[in-house]
Amino acid sequence: MDKSKYGKLISFEGIEGSGKSTLAQELYNYLTSQNYNVVFTREPGGTILGEKIRELLLDENLEISDWSELFLFLASRYENTKNVILPNLKRGYIVISDRYLDSTVAYQGYGRGLSFKIIEMLNSISTMDIKPDLTFLIDIPEEISIERIKKKNLDRIESETIEFYKKVRNGYLELAKNEPQRFIVLDGSLELSKLKEEVIKSTMKLLGGEK
Amino acid sequence: MDKSKYGKLISFEGIEGSGKSTLAQELYNYLTSQNYNVVFTREPGGTILGEKIRELLLDENLEISDWSELFLFLASRYENTKNVILPNLKRGYIVISDRYLDSTVAYQGYGRGLSFKIIEMLNSISTMDIKPDLTFLIDIPEEISIERIKKKNLDRIESETIEFYKKVRNGYLELAKNEPQRFIVLDGSLELSKLKEEVIKSTMKLLGGEK
Repeated sequence: MDKSKYGKLISFEGIEGSGKSTLAQELYNYLTSQNYNVVFTREPGGTILGEKIRELLLDENLEISDWSELFLFLASRYENTKNVILPNLKRGYIVISDRYLDSTVAYQGYGRGLSFKIIEMLNSISTMDIKPDLTFLIDIPEEISIERIKKKNLDRIESETIEFYKKVRNGYLELAKNEPQRFIVLDGSLELSKLKEEVIKSTMKLLGGEK
Repeated sequence: MDKSKYGKLISFEGIEGSGKSTLAQELYNYLTSQNYNVVFTREPGGTILGEKIRELLLDENLEISDWSELFLFLASRYENTKNVILPNLKRGYIVISDRYLDSTVAYQGYGRGLSFKIIEMLNSISTMDIKPDLTFLIDIPEEISIERIKKKNLDRIESETIEFYKKVRNGYLELAKNEPQRFIVLDGSLELSKLKEEVIKSTMKLLGGEK
């Protein structure tokens, strides 16, 4: 296949309340307004099965063990990669994903303490070895995360402790340090308009049309 | 821990329409009537999460890719092992499971062609390395399976082709051949009363109380 016609995959990562979902949506809106072919997806979710799995994962009344949680995320990811991400990249589209493989390393690896080696192997299967071309890590201190999300009814994952979020946040920062060419770390405590500008600037650089 | 006080795990396997669920239930009823401490579980299912996953797996309107299907079964199995099978074995109960780890090797390995090596590794995680003490394989030819299940509204897995069932059946027979000390293969085309007698006889032998 002619790789030059391949689309680009851009993922957004960060702990709860970081603003990553808003920024991912803002980037989608901007690229659409500039007539790019772009699709938006999210994890867990993105497919009919994935959205049903999302309901289970976020259900605050459901007990889910660490490994079962991992397997559910992987089930959602494989379905989404196979049916949404891969076909859209193949037809040259830009795919924006609100969370992707790094979430699993950060949450189930650093956060829950499951084996990194097994997670890496299973991420490789569930992503069909498709890595993002660019990953925005929206970084906020865990105290701000807790502050922001406690204003709403918490779902199962949002109900975690501050220690858990600290581990996840530090995990994300570690991942970004190890792959500086793929990650752009943004300070999520900045104004939204400023963050949006940074996201658009880096994306346009990736797409070859400097802004 | 004193292993002599450990319970026994008995699993029932076979393709659709083999009668394994009926026999598993019959064994449960018999052991209960004999005042044994026994719990009945099934896969997918057995826990609140597991039963919700079961709904997804059997939903004939849902498209589920091969790897996602595997991950869903594993999520259900880990939850069930951790919260139902292990605690009951620990308190000396007999656990009867309608399907367990061999189903994954037969269906996702032999049937769908996924890597046996990866399935074995993931089965080890999802079962916490708990193997059945005794496994009844209720064997029927794939033609009879199709004949029996076509009388009802088919779920997603029951809607598979006869070629698929043939692969799964042969996979089961291969597994039984490799572990003759664990498997008892019964001819599912026999009368239910005869099958029930065989199941009870072999179980009582395992439990040390010959019938």
